[in-house]
This record gives sequence, C-alpha cells and structure tokens, in this order.
Amino acid sequence: MSATVHTLPRSEASLGPILSLTADGMNQVNSIILDRMQSKIPLIPALAGHLIAGGGKRLRPMLTLASGALLEYGGTRHHKLAAVVEFIHTATLLHDDVVDGSDMRRGKQAANVVFGNPAAVLVGDFLFSRSFELMTEDGSIKVLKILSNASAIIAEGEVDQLTAQRQLETTEERYLQIVGAKTAALFAAACRIAAVVAERDQDTEEKLDAYGRNLGVAFQLADDAIDYDSEVGESGKDKGDDFREGKMTLPVILAYARGTDEERAFWTDAMKGKRTSDEDLAHAIKLIAKYDAVNATRERARHYADRAIDAISGFPANAARAAMIEAAQFAVARRF
Amino acid sequence: MSATVHTLPRSEASLGPILSLTADGMNQVNSIILDRMQSKIPLIPALAGHLIAGGGKRLRPMLTLASGALLEYGGTRHHKLAAVVEFIHTATLLHDDVVDGSDMRRGKQAANVVFGNPAAVLVGDFLFSRSFELMTEDGSIKVLKILSNASAIIAEGEVDQLTAQRQLETTEERYLQIVGAKTAALFAAACRIAAVVAERDQDTEEKLDAYGRNLGVAFQLADDAIDYDSEVGESGKDKGDDFREGKMTLPVILAYARGTDEERAFWTDAMKGKRTSDEDLAHAIKLIAKYDAVNATRERARHYADRAIDAISGFPANAARAAMIEAAQFAVARRF
Repeated sequence: MSATVHTLPRSEASLGPILSLTADGMNQVNSIILDRMQSKIPLIPALAGHLIAGGGKRLRPMLTLASGALLEYGGTRHHKLAAVVEFIHTATLLHDDVVDGSDMRRGKQAANVVFGNPAAVLVGDFLFSRSFELMTEDGSIKVLKILSNASAIIAEGEVDQLTAQRQLETTEERYLQIVGAKTAALFAAACRIAAVVAERDQDTEEKLDAYGRNLGVAFQLADDAIDYDSEVGESGKDKGDDFREGKMTLPVILAYARGTDEERAFWTDAMKGKRTSDEDLAHAIKLIAKYDAVNATRERARHYADRAIDAISGFPANAARAAMIEAAQFAVARRF
Repeated sequence: MSATVHTLPRSEASLGPILSLTADGMNQVNSIILDRMQSKIPLIPALAGHLIAGGGKRLRPMLTLASGALLEYGGTRHHKLAAVVEFIHTATLLHDDVVDGSDMRRGKQAANVVFGNPAAVLVGDFLFSRSFELMTEDGSIKVLKILSNASAIIAEGEVDQLTAQRQLETTEERYLQIVGAKTAALFAAACRIAAVVAERDQDTEEKLDAYGRNLGVAFQLADDAIDYDSEVGESGKDKGDDFREGKMTLPVILAYARGTDEERAFWTDAMKGKRTSDEDLAHAIKLIAKYDAVNATRERARHYADRAIDAISGFPANAARAAMIEAAQFAVARRF
C-alpha cells in the first residue's frame, strides 16, 4: 500500500499546493473566525482583528483541512474546529508578545504595543474561552479532550520556556521538550482531530498526530535558525528578538556547546541580557556561523520534516498527501 | 410548596452554615485542586500554590457543593466540577492582578509581584487550560457548554471593565452589565452545574442560576462598597486600590452623579489618575460618605441578595437551603 514518495528539491518546495488544496475550505474557516471573534465590546474585535487580519499563514487550520482531504472526509465539521485551532494559536501569540515585550508581529506593530498589555492579556483570554465554546458546539468529547489537552500542554511549554530563558545550561533535549509542548502539540492536535471527525481508527489518528507533531518541531527549529541566519533579511518578527530576550534556542545551544571558553563567556553575558547592542547581535551571528549552527539547526529540522513525511507515507497518494509532503519540505527550505 | 423564609438579622449572618455543610466535600475538592495544579514544570505549582494556598473563601466551589446538597444529590461528579470553577476563578485573579498592576491579594504579595507578570500570565493560562481538561473528564456536553460560556462571558466582562476604566460617563446600568459578566456569570454557572449533574429539569437549573447570579452581583457590590467604607479597616486587597486604578465602581458612580460641579471635577481628575495621594483618597471617602454612596451601594447589594434568596424559596427547606440563604445575607452584611 505504501508508495515511493517522490520529493521535490527542497529549495523549490512551497506552500502553494496546500494553499490551493484548502482554499475553499479556508474561506469557510475565515468566515467562522471573523464571525466568532465578534463581541458587543468593541475592543475585542478591534484587537483580535489587528492580529487576525494582520496575515499569518494560518498554517494550523490549513493542516486540519488538508488532513481531512487526505482522508477524503466529505463533511464540514472540521471547518469550525480549524477555527478553534486558529483561535487557540492567536490567544497564545497575544500572550507571548506580552510576556516577551515584543514590538513587532507579522511585520506590524504587535497588539500589546497598539492596545496595551492589559487589553492583549484579556482579549487573549476571550479568544481562548471562545475557542472552548466553539469546540463544545461540535459536541465530540474526543475532540474536546484532544484540544483541551493540547492547550494545557502549550501553556506548560510556555511556562517551561520562561523558566529556561537566560539559562545557559539549557540542553538540546530540554529545548526539544519545550518545542514539543509550546509548538508541536497544537500542530499534532490540528491534524489529529481530522481523523476523529472522519471517524477513522486509532492508527490513523496516530499517524496524523505524528505528521503534525514532527512538522511543528521542523517549523519551530527553522524559525529559530532564521533569527540567526546571516543570509536572511527581514522576517515577520524583529531580527535578533530571540537574542535580546535571552532565549536559549538551538542555534545558541549549539554555538555555546561548540564554543571556546571566551565565546561561552560572551554567550553567558548575552543571554543574561548584558549584551544587547547591534554589534553584540552581529558578533552572535558570526559565532553561530563559525560553528555552522544555523545549518545544524536546519539539519535537525530536516530530520523532523522527514519523519513527518514518513508518518503519512502509508496513505493513498492523493493531492492532499502531495501537498502535505511539500509543506513539510517547505518548513525546512523557507528563508522567512 | 414555598415556605416562609425566616431570615436572621443581617449583621449576624455568617458563612458558618455553608462552611459546615460543605466541609467534607470541600476536602475532596481541595485535594483535586492540589492534585491537578501539579506539573513537571516546578514554577506552575509554586505560583499556583502561592495564590491557592493563600486562602480565599473558595465560595464558588462551595456554592456548587451547597447546590448539590440543596437538590440532595448523592454523587461525587460535582467535586471535580467545583475544582474546575475554582481553577477558572484563580486564572482570572492571576490575570486581573497583572492587568491592574496589583501589589496585594488576600493579604499577601500578589503572585505577579513575587513571580513576575510573565509567569502570572502563563500560569493563569495553564490553570485555565487545565480547567477545560478537567471538565472534559466529566464528559457532559451540557456542563461543558455552561462553563465554557461562563468563561467567555467573564473574559468579555473583564475587557468591558478595562474599557470603562477612568470613563466618568460610566452609568450604573453599564456597571451592572460589567459585574454581571465578570463576577456573576461564574457564580451562576457554579450553582447551575449542580442541577445538571443531579439530572434535574430546566426550571431547577434556572432557579439555581438565578440564585448564583444575584448572589454574585450582591458580593461584588458589597466588595466595591468596602473599598470606600470609612468604618472598615483592612480588607484582603489594598485599601483604595479601586480609587487609584480609576475603577468606576458604584460608590463613585453615585457620588459623581449626586455631586456638585466642583466635586465632579475632583472625581474627573481622580479617575483620570491625577489624584492618587492618601489625602485624595481621604477626600474621596468623605465625598462618598456625604452622599451616603456606600450605604446606597449596600442597599443595591441587599436587593440582589433578596432576589437570590427568593430564587431558591421554592426548594424544600433543608439545611442546604438555610445555609445558602444565610450566605446571601452574609454577602451584604460583611465588612471584609
């Protein structure tokens, strides 16, 4: 049943196929999102709309739809659930930006800057609560368990990341645990719920979970590489944010582990917040290049992308499978 | 069926009867709370424990248990749901204190002061997510709808309160809307879910909802009165917090409405944050006393407490009903 998987050269991979595949469904999802972020309190749609209308790839809800298409699910239950996934993600972004004191998000001023931290915290809470209301409308306890469990794991991962911040002893293992929780858990849930609404067996659920989970890790690792990639210009967030916030991402963990005592002293100062100038950032990027830590991080990402692709290799070779494979290749290849 | 309700003189009312009634059940609830606030990330139980172990009346979960006793429900499903209610409340408190920049909570340093705002935001998110996980374990879609709807209404009310802050034109009607959402919705849900687990009819659900909702309004109004009551010494929060945060609570709304032009100018300056000294607070308390606005607020509270009591007057006159009536009397009589 398993067919040979033909892959594109990674650098040519794009989100094009998954975007086309899910375009119609995403129109439905987007109208649910717009409809359900409304409130009689005007600040709520204003703030939520700033972030939601502000773009973003909407990759997570797209994965729910693509997973449905992979299973040739013909219903519409997953539209509402895809909106739930995006609401959870949006609530997390709002709180992340407050916690990190971020200025920019998706190339625009962050919501916490425009509307203030109190509003960003409370509207995040609203979107989060609203996501639970939407889930209960679907009525499947199994879906509710998957999504509420993912939410709790995300929150745990966010706290774990906060605890690891500025901690030089953070290992690659610990970092992967954090990524698995704060990022990959929602990717996994987004894919898995499609198997539940399509009423497929446990094995199918687990394959889609594995696809989403590995893809999530690949995306996060590639994101973390971009922040120190000397060949990348602008990304959605401010270049060097991770550095100035003392985030122990994999490029830093590897450059620190591979570095000399003197270089480690630099990293210690930098992660403790004592080196935040543009020159310090340039030096950090130089050290990371010296130890090839951006490429090493991308290689790790490639490993997880490969696992994601293999997780769905047993499914029939339809357009959805091809689009999901290419999305995993894109995760690693992208430079933005 | 409805019996005459014999009430105590209000000043003698206490939480004693409801505390005794629910003592055994609350032991179960407390051990669920302690068990389910655990995490492998040590910061989570440390921060959650600071607030949860820090006391508080645990009135909301107690109301779930008392409502169960009122209906002579013999099961234990409501123990877990009572813990859910307390988790939602705790998450809200954590975020409130971040939003308000509060220093004190329940007579101790607030969690955001001890652990920082980022940790308080993220652990609040964790407790909130955990509460949803716990609800799904109960497995009743009806309970999930009631609690997730209450959560969304609370978040909406919190945003509404933020929008009304420092806005002198806030009316009593608007204020009651805010209180209905941010406080009374959870009281209502806490009581209502007992009728669902006891498998009682819609009418019973609505009566318990009405008891909780009116009691919640009464408690909040009495709380807001205490912050300006010249006869009250220390309460759990810092005296004058509402004043310094520019919160348009009912004592201020009434004193402003009843005041002279000169007094209104003072209130305008004060609510805009231009008058925050101890002398300014003393002057505010004097103006509120001049227009009897603390007593007027308490009278409004008494109105809602009466409605709460009448909402359950049709139930058999058991110990639970007596305890719930006295709790409503206590809501208005208390001076702390």
